[in-house]
Amino acid sequence: MSDLTLWRDARLATFAGDQPWGAIENGALLTRGERIEWVGPLADLPRGTPVQREHALQGAWVTPGLIDAHTHLVYGGHRGHEFELRLQGASYEEIARAGGGIRSTVAHTRAASEAELLASASKRLAALKAEGLTTIEIKSGYGLSREHEAKMLRVARGLAAQGVQVRTTYLGLHALPPEFEGRADAYVDSCLEDLPLLQAEGLVDAVDAFCETIGFTAAQVERLFERARALGLPVKLHAEQLSDQGGSQLTARFRGLSADHLEWLSPEGVQAMAAAGTVAMLLPGAYHCLRETKLPPIAALREAGVPMALATDHNPGTAPVLSLLATLQLACIHFRLTPEEALRGLTVNAARALGLKDRGVLAAGTRADFCIWGVDHPRELSYWLGGRPLLNRVFGGLADQELA
Amino acid sequence: MSDLTLWRDARLATFAGDQPWGAIENGALLTRGERIEWVGPLADLPRGTPVQREHALQGAWVTPGLIDAHTHLVYGGHRGHEFELRLQGASYEEIARAGGGIRSTVAHTRAASEAELLASASKRLAALKAEGLTTIEIKSGYGLSREHEAKMLRVARGLAAQGVQVRTTYLGLHALPPEFEGRADAYVDSCLEDLPLLQAEGLVDAVDAFCETIGFTAAQVERLFERARALGLPVKLHAEQLSDQGGSQLTARFRGLSADHLEWLSPEGVQAMAAAGTVAMLLPGAYHCLRETKLPPIAALREAGVPMALATDHNPGTAPVLSLLATLQLACIHFRLTPEEALRGLTVNAARALGLKDRGVLAAGTRADFCIWGVDHPRELSYWLGGRPLLNRVFGGLADQELA
Ligand SMILES: [Zn+2]
Ligand SMILES: [Zn+2]
Repeated sequence: MSDLTLWRDARLATFAGDQPWGAIENGALLTRGERIEWVGPLADLPRGTPVQREHALQGAWVTPGLIDAHTHLVYGGHRGHEFELRLQGASYEEIARAGGGIRSTVAHTRAASEAELLASASKRLAALKAEGLTTIEIKSGYGLSREHEAKMLRVARGLAAQGVQVRTTYLGLHALPPEFEGRADAYVDSCLEDLPLLQAEGLVDAVDAFCETIGFTAAQVERLFERARALGLPVKLHAEQLSDQGGSQLTARFRGLSADHLEWLSPEGVQAMAAAGTVAMLLPGAYHCLRETKLPPIAALREAGVPMALATDHNPGTAPVLSLLATLQLACIHFRLTPEEALRGLTVNAARALGLKDRGVLAAGTRADFCIWGVDHPRELSYWLGGRPLLNRVFGGLADQELA
Repeated sequence: MSDLTLWRDARLATFAGDQPWGAIENGALLTRGERIEWVGPLADLPRGTPVQREHALQGAWVTPGLIDAHTHLVYGGHRGHEFELRLQGASYEEIARAGGGIRSTVAHTRAASEAELLASASKRLAALKAEGLTTIEIKSGYGLSREHEAKMLRVARGLAAQGVQVRTTYLGLHALPPEFEGRADAYVDSCLEDLPLLQAEGLVDAVDAFCETIGFTAAQVERLFERARALGLPVKLHAEQLSDQGGSQLTARFRGLSADHLEWLSPEGVQAMAAAGTVAMLLPGAYHCLRETKLPPIAALREAGVPMALATDHNPGTAPVLSLLATLQLACIHFRLTPEEALRGLTVNAARALGLKDRGVLAAGTRADFCIWGVDHPRELSYWLGGRPLLNRVFGGLADQELA
């Protein structure tokens, strides 16, 4: 028994290399366990390869498994009522007085048990998996204390039992918890203390913060990033979403994985990111839900060769988005990404934004995580809004749906 | 045997009456065959009602079945490649020269067999049904000759075998077919001749046209509407989408069912619609995909008491939208409808836009078409973008998924 599985009669969008889509017609994949062993035109498959199992995909398109590299998937409650109040004309102040805003999510998250958080996040995860998700990043940031941040991160880790890989990010500097009102620096101090403890529990793959006038200052974020560097943890940042705080330059100085949002990114920020190899993480769902009108500088990012990734930014306040495909469509409509750039953003560039070299492309040695689509061409994944084009999701070499 | 089925332990958003949502807690529905027999709080169910079957819905929310009252669901090919070319920077002229635009859909539709059209439309219909569709309006308008318009309408009628009710609309005045280039009035003449013949074949429930500088003039549309009136067919109109052509006043003069799009609707148009009882059919998917910035006059429509409906406007060019739930979300985000207004737009007001009095609400005597949702409140159907909240769809009293 060779343990080799051949997936043939496929059209492949490998995203390996710089050719559009990395397309291979009459393609085939060879997998062994959780890994891809070989990718190419079927005609190039070495003769005599000892294949144990074969699946004919009837000309379907295969892409790398989708990667959502910026989410806040774990939280208590949701903010549907607040969404309605806003549309009924309530002001942000009125909503805050009615107990709305991020503080309501913090309160619900603190009050929730791990089992409750796991149950609600699992439902959301299932929606994303149904559209081809195979790797997801999940941030803390609604606990805002060691105990509750740890609880969130344990729940995130626990979701890895549900047929996806999970990367966790510590986002203590997401908002100021009520008990630190007026004492932001003291809260930063407490986060600096918590970080190594959370890391020691194996709960932290990376560190993030919200650098904004309504969040934390660049100086406060820098203190966090110094600590992360000392601990050997990569950083990323919610940067230039509502104003230019120079967060992307700061992130670049720490050779950060990604700077995220970027609507107000300056030319200097673009150059700094290009030089550092920091990924531009675009979040069209938040742009859409907030009805932003200031676009991230897509042309400048392209020009400078900054890799562009996409993510849902799933969160209950500003982006209750549970669709990777809608994220593609929003990126094309709002940001004018091409369908190829958009899908690159959920695969190869998303993997890069997580610092993961073993996925995001179809290539020998990478994880056998891929999606089989019932479309004429993968550009359609950005074209339709809605629909259910996913025929099958393969995670670690195993298909969700039974195969012929 | 009483033939009565009781659906209990439900929360109902009946949309009957003017109360928000028409909500009933601890509600129940009694159905007999395809009809709803009784709706109310379970406590009010007359004692001794001879119930043959009971389904406990465990507190789930029930709404009327969703109605998509403006679609172009039947067509050959799609325009994914054109979508990509546009995002790659191609001009409309370049796309037209490359064979794109509506004429490419006309060519593909004419070239397609009925079986091919049925197969492609069925897939799209399945996506809409999976989100709770129970009644759909489908327009002709890519055949542009008697033969091919009839073919489209027969395919639309044929979709009624797939667990939905279908209303067909003749949209001959959608675009000028190539063989009538420069002879728009002659084409209108031919449509006036075709209409009674198509009606005689039982293919036409209503008549529509595209009144626009790039479509047909109000005078041409008026000739069509006169013919429709003579034939006893109700009218509706693609009106004021890209400019104010006075199409909504024209529609109101004919006591039209709906005027659709309405981004450029004037105050006079609003008043005319209000006086005529013409529904304002808002199409946020097209607004979104075209990146429009001019909003329909929602506040004026509200003020004047014009009923507002929503639809996907599914079509391969300007709205490849296959999601009723995304349509709700887009209506809230772009048009600032409240979640209640949005869902009213896909239920009671959509039924009104089709001239159908027997659906769109949960009330005695209406069709037993309803949706069972796994949400805390139906406002969530507008809040999330993506996800799969539909637990079950009941069509004519029969549930898609097996029930306890
Ligand atoms: Zn975020
Ligand atoms: Zn239309």
